[in-house]
Amino acid sequence: MLGLKSPEHSLDRIIALCRDLTSNKGEALGTALAREVTRTYQHLNDEDRIVFFRWLKEELSPSPEGILKAAHAYAEEENRHTLLALMEAAEPPRQNLFRRINMAPGGTSELVNMRKLLRQAIRDEPELAVIDVDLQHLMNAWFNRGFLELRHINWETPADLLEKIMSYESVHEMSGWEDLKRRLADDRRCFAFFHPAMPDEPLIFVEVALVKGMSPSIQPILDEPINPDATVADHAIFYSINNCQAGLVGISFGNFLIKQVVMELQQELPKLKHFATLSPLPGFRQWLSSEIAAEASWITDAPDMEWLLRLEQEGKVTRENKSIHRALMRASARYLYHEKRGIAPLDPVARFHLGNGASIDRINYLGDTSENGMKNAWGMLVNYRYELSEVEQNHEAYINDGEISVSTEFSKLV
Amino acid sequence: MLGLKSPEHSLDRIIALCRDLTSNKGEALGTALAREVTRTYQHLNDEDRIVFFRWLKEELSPSPEGILKAAHAYAEEENRHTLLALMEAAEPPRQNLFRRINMAPGGTSELVNMRKLLRQAIRDEPELAVIDVDLQHLMNAWFNRGFLELRHINWETPADLLEKIMSYESVHEMSGWEDLKRRLADDRRCFAFFHPAMPDEPLIFVEVALVKGMSPSIQPILDEPINPDATVADHAIFYSINNCQAGLVGISFGNFLIKQVVMELQQELPKLKHFATLSPLPGFRQWLSSEIAAEASWITDAPDMEWLLRLEQEGKVTRENKSIHRALMRASARYLYHEKRGIAPLDPVARFHLGNGASIDRINYLGDTSENGMKNAWGMLVNYRYELSEVEQNHEAYINDGEISVSTEFSKLV
Amino acid sequence: MLGLKSPEHSLDRIIALCRDLTSNKGEALGTALAREVTRTYQHLNDEDRIVFFRWLKEELSPSPEGILKAAHAYAEEENRHTLLALMEAAEPPRQNLFRRINMAPGGTSELVNMRKLLRQAIRDEPELAVIDVDLQHLMNAWFNRGFLELRHINWETPADLLEKIMSYESVHEMSGWEDLKRRLADDRRCFAFFHPAMPDEPLIFVEVALVKGMSPSIQPILDEPINPDATVADHAIFYSINNCQAGLVGISFGNFLIKQVVMELQQELPKLKHFATLSPLPGFRQWLSSEIAAEASWITDAPDMEWLLRLEQEGKVTRENKSIHRALMRASARYLYHEKRGIAPLDPVARFHLGNGASIDRINYLGDTSENGMKNAWGMLVNYRYELSEVEQNHEAYINDGEISVSTEFSKLV
Amino acid sequence: MLGLKSPEHSLDRIIALCRDLTSNKGEALGTALAREVTRTYQHLNDEDRIVFFRWLKEELSPSPEGILKAAHAYAEEENRHTLLALMEAAEPPRQNLFRRINMAPGGTSELVNMRKLLRQAIRDEPELAVIDVDLQHLMNAWFNRGFLELRHINWETPADLLEKIMSYESVHEMSGWEDLKRRLADDRRCFAFFHPAMPDEPLIFVEVALVKGMSPSIQPILDEPINPDATVADHAIFYSINNCQAGLVGISFGNFLIKQVVMELQQELPKLKHFATLSPLPGFRQWLSSEIAAEASWITDAPDMEWLLRLEQEGKVTRENKSIHRALMRASARYLYHEKRGIAPLDPVARFHLGNGASIDRINYLGDTSENGMKNAWGMLVNYRYELSEVEQNHEAYINDGEISVSTEFSKLV
Repeated sequence: MLGLKSPEHSLDRIIALCRDLTSNKGEALGTALAREVTRTYQHLNDEDRIVFFRWLKEELSPSPEGILKAAHAYAEEENRHTLLALMEAAEPPRQNLFRRINMAPGGTSELVNMRKLLRQAIRDEPELAVIDVDLQHLMNAWFNRGFLELRHINWETPADLLEKIMSYESVHEMSGWEDLKRRLADDRRCFAFFHPAMPDEPLIFVEVALVKGMSPSIQPILDEPINPDATVADHAIFYSINNCQAGLVGISFGNFLIKQVVMELQQELPKLKHFATLSPLPGFRQWLSSEIAAEASWITDAPDMEWLLRLEQEGKVTRENKSIHRALMRASARYLYHEKRGIAPLDPVARFHLGNGASIDRINYLGDTSENGMKNAWGMLVNYRYELSEVEQNHEAYINDGEISVSTEFSKLV
Repeated sequence: MLGLKSPEHSLDRIIALCRDLTSNKGEALGTALAREVTRTYQHLNDEDRIVFFRWLKEELSPSPEGILKAAHAYAEEENRHTLLALMEAAEPPRQNLFRRINMAPGGTSELVNMRKLLRQAIRDEPELAVIDVDLQHLMNAWFNRGFLELRHINWETPADLLEKIMSYESVHEMSGWEDLKRRLADDRRCFAFFHPAMPDEPLIFVEVALVKGMSPSIQPILDEPINPDATVADHAIFYSINNCQAGLVGISFGNFLIKQVVMELQQELPKLKHFATLSPLPGFRQWLSSEIAAEASWITDAPDMEWLLRLEQEGKVTRENKSIHRALMRASARYLYHEKRGIAPLDPVARFHLGNGASIDRINYLGDTSENGMKNAWGMLVNYRYELSEVEQNHEAYINDGEISVSTEFSKLV
Repeated sequence: MLGLKSPEHSLDRIIALCRDLTSNKGEALGTALAREVTRTYQHLNDEDRIVFFRWLKEELSPSPEGILKAAHAYAEEENRHTLLALMEAAEPPRQNLFRRINMAPGGTSELVNMRKLLRQAIRDEPELAVIDVDLQHLMNAWFNRGFLELRHINWETPADLLEKIMSYESVHEMSGWEDLKRRLADDRRCFAFFHPAMPDEPLIFVEVALVKGMSPSIQPILDEPINPDATVADHAIFYSINNCQAGLVGISFGNFLIKQVVMELQQELPKLKHFATLSPLPGFRQWLSSEIAAEASWITDAPDMEWLLRLEQEGKVTRENKSIHRALMRASARYLYHEKRGIAPLDPVARFHLGNGASIDRINYLGDTSENGMKNAWGMLVNYRYELSEVEQNHEAYINDGEISVSTEFSKLV
Repeated sequence: MLGLKSPEHSLDRIIALCRDLTSNKGEALGTALAREVTRTYQHLNDEDRIVFFRWLKEELSPSPEGILKAAHAYAEEENRHTLLALMEAAEPPRQNLFRRINMAPGGTSELVNMRKLLRQAIRDEPELAVIDVDLQHLMNAWFNRGFLELRHINWETPADLLEKIMSYESVHEMSGWEDLKRRLADDRRCFAFFHPAMPDEPLIFVEVALVKGMSPSIQPILDEPINPDATVADHAIFYSINNCQAGLVGISFGNFLIKQVVMELQQELPKLKHFATLSPLPGFRQWLSSEIAAEASWITDAPDMEWLLRLEQEGKVTRENKSIHRALMRASARYLYHEKRGIAPLDPVARFHLGNGASIDRINYLGDTSENGMKNAWGMLVNYRYELSEVEQNHEAYINDGEISVSTEFSKLV
């Protein structure tokens, strides 16, 4: 059923090795055996790896009987022994295996890669998701914020690392080394989190522009000439945040990164007064299309209806057309503020920043005139503001009541 | 009941902070709140800390009802959701709190210190042991071998770190900086494990002498003049292993350290052929006394009886007395090989090395003539041998059947 | 005459500062005053700097009378005092000034830059060359081999440094980051010398290809796919050496660099057996043209005459034309071996490598088919061989008698 | 005469090697030959080294005839060629040799050691002093302030370096590691200069106490408990400055070190307002004795005469004896201010600090009650004040006119 074949088959070998690794043998041989497992796994093709995942699910899941027994014992008397027995019964044996694989040199990286593939496999075989429960549980422990190291990325950073930053940038793609160099100039900042066990792999990074005034659009940030004196800036604009590791999805770094960088910048540049993002609305245009198609009542009632229809047909946004401007401002404000999934906004970027305690400051017409910007959001961009002193209160209102903190300017739109 | 007093009371404060930290607030404020918790904890006196432990036990233990419900659901259908629900129900809420405290700068150190005090408190209040179940679980994940860094400790090491090494050495105490310097000379080696989140705190270290031939006694190792040419050595003698952190008891490092150091030394000095310890028998003398007092049959039957009794009365061991020599060799061999706790040896050092896959090579009369050596083991020392190619097989035989691997020489004694 | 103008004029200022710096004031204020001098110099335009150079020449040259007096005193009695007095009299006061400027942070770099401009100025005003005598004397002391640091340049090197390497490469220009990356891959090496006072500025660097067999042409080295296993190579080909600092002309680094790199590579890759260059003949084509124009007797007598004339007229070299091939081999061998400036070869690259103790191993037809290669040397390249055990003897024969060591293969051509 | 013996004699060998090193051979073999010279020198005994020095003097001194010829040529026409020829003629060939020895790994250290021995040898053979002229000339260039690195020495400094600091401290000797640790605590600072070619050898270091108010005596600085909060200090007291390398005598570092440390401390601790030394008067007691013996007129006229005589006879200084107190204050002030060697003070420490531009602030009775303090200066200590804004003016007045800047308080004593 698991598709095991000949004895020499490396799939058989990895399963045999994993059995050893979780047994007493694993204790004695320690890292040597773990290293063998990672090597063997590296030589498997993806098909065999998925068969290996099936084995992990079949053989290393916790036993329901054992759990029930331990749960009853614990319910009867709560003490060290019953708690320990319960935790052991409830913990899938996979976790012990993963912990031991992690002992190998490079083991952490390998498990992150493994999870990346696993999550792809889960789309076709949802029952493999139980394995991800374990990996995510362990990675939450291993990638605890307390273990992460914040590094400043600049033009003195080793080239191999910069090359990775370039390839991981997906919000506003870099066209090459010159583009990268501009983003690391004196009036820009870039910070990344690293984990000590993966010192050459950024986990997440953020790009910041130090400017005068709030930035309404992305193109100047990417293209304008370098301002050699960053000390005059009063705004720090977080214009790109990128998670680098598909195998670490669901382990949250972004919230910590933004707040840590705000603190770093405040210390370095005391004249900085405002911290805000310049963020996309990735699903706005698609949402608007379907609203129009569905003849949503707010559209049919809206004064902007005519212009929204024309935009949908003609697909043209110009700086001159004030009516389109007004229509898109109002529509995107509605999308951001009123469209929900449960009590949270429909827009994923809004969910992230509002969940971090930010507030909506401003919507910007023609904020991103790139092809991508047009395709996703008719060129609209949003500034979310991070005011550290209000973050807690914003967060609580948002989490508990779905309340969204907005600026006066924005509130006039909704 | 928990002893909470006035609202300003810092015990109240830490409890309030911990409630926040495990709530939504904790998500928004992240490391800032965690830092507050560690600061407040640092200002508590030990009495209040123990009250805090009681609160952790009372309020943050998992609910038996919740667990039973989740266990039944999982037993009914095993899938991602039921597994996740089960793991969440079975995981004490304390773990979430500890994970968030760990986010604070220095949080890991603080939790290690907290566990040190907790384990002392458990002696008087064994029911607090449930908290330790959680701390040990998390530390097992956090201090995974894959995250540890091996460092060579030598005379170029920063003085503050050397000072700690001196204070943590308890097997063969150091009398000062001259003593330390001798142990770090060219014919000696010292290696320690560190964790990236506690870069200034050694977790465990081992001291090694590079010598010609097997070392039968400790005093020459500590006192003999430096041999400037370590490359002639064929034996590496591990003569002292010290765990440094009382708050990391039960997290095993020693096994990994010894094997890693064996590999490091093999690479650096290819002429090294043998790797062995020179180890104490900490409980031998006390055991022998009680055997004599109890008139154990093996004593009354033994040809050495007379000499063991005389030794017990006169308390004198000399190099000349061959009868005492023979009597102690046989008695200590019996102690090591036949005296058990379950299927494992009674002697804790033997349990450690044999459990790692070592074998007993030799017992040494007058191996440690220091006051301590006499008091604990009538001066006897043991060489355990680490032969990497036999470690796995020794370990399995030992774990499964309690079988102890010994040299031919030693086997003649038992 | 020196062109001094108004008192605020910064030229006046630097001269006043230099007077202070060489006086007692300079002793008391130390680095502060030196820093002022470098700052003021940085703000001068090149014209003013040259006026400043004139002042250095006029005012800070040694006094002939003083020297004569000291020379007579020394001739009368050689002792510590007369020697010291002589050395002081003979040393231009400029050296004291330069030594004190060097105390400023970044002073060394500034003096290197100053010398670069000075050497340009000397072309128009040869009498300024006396200043260069002093700068070269000091730089010879400051940039002593014992103070230089050899660094391995690779893809982990900081980007700002790699950018400089790219811009300093002039033998085989790099087209961009991809080209650079290929030259730093596993089967290539790049080493540079640095001085501790200019840690971000390479002084000289060499690029090496690790290959099987002697390389006859440069294009494969620049273009061929990466061989991931450098350990199979038996030849290290030094295919590009670049001095980076025009202000350090005449301070020799290349000889040391090559020999040091040979030793580094021997240690890292014991299978490497041969060390050779792949070098240009920069003046060959021009020399050949003028020989043809002058109807040099060796040409008119040569069997290749016809082909050399045709080449000169048609300007075409092809892989198929064996006659042109033979003609160029013989002509370039003659150029290398027989054409002299004094007893040394006319070709500067030959002078450098033969002066270092290398031997001529081989000439390569169509070794460099780039535009530059054709323009300078009809595509010819030379392999010079560095055999460490023969270097001393080659060097002595070359320096003393102008004797050139060559391979059997090459000797057949001349 | 030079004492050369058998051909295998290593003295012959070093001379042969030195001949090679200064010849063409030296150019080709570069560092390899230099390394041989340093190795051979290391194996010579001191007697042979001194014979080697004689050889350096006999054979490698500049030729008087050559110098005269070059001096005349230069007097006739000043240009690049005559200047270069003059400098070459006047430069002892020893300098070329030393420059090439310096190329060896560790060459700089070896030359520093060589100079240490040379200076001892000069006491017996003053004519060897010509060699020292060359070494000092080169070291002045090599140890230029611009090449020195300032390092903060603290408890995190590697132990081997701290051990050297301890052994080099001779002003106020350290009794061991505890003493050292106190001097590196939070309310103390220690800074040292290093040269990149001797990274493990401090050249000079200064110890600073951060205190409230001017320190009148040394014992509290060495013994008082640590003040954990250095930020409250308003005075930085430089209480010990030590040159570490006898082979660098005459190369001045102290002046630069003090001023650099003043600037570092001002930046780190803006509350520091005053920078002063607490310095010994090393020759005071001896001078006073000889003045008394000589019945110097100022003594016979002095109101303190009686007490000075009694002190000389009884040798007892007590805190209670106001008359002795007053007598010593006045006598030491006279010694500091009026006793000269030329126009400079007789006291070497005064010459150093006043030459650096410091002023005399205060004399302290019973400032150093240690045995040494009593033996050298009847326990008197001096505070010299470094006011950066007055340093230049003090220095000039001192150098030009022998004028000493003093405080109002001190001026009342003289």
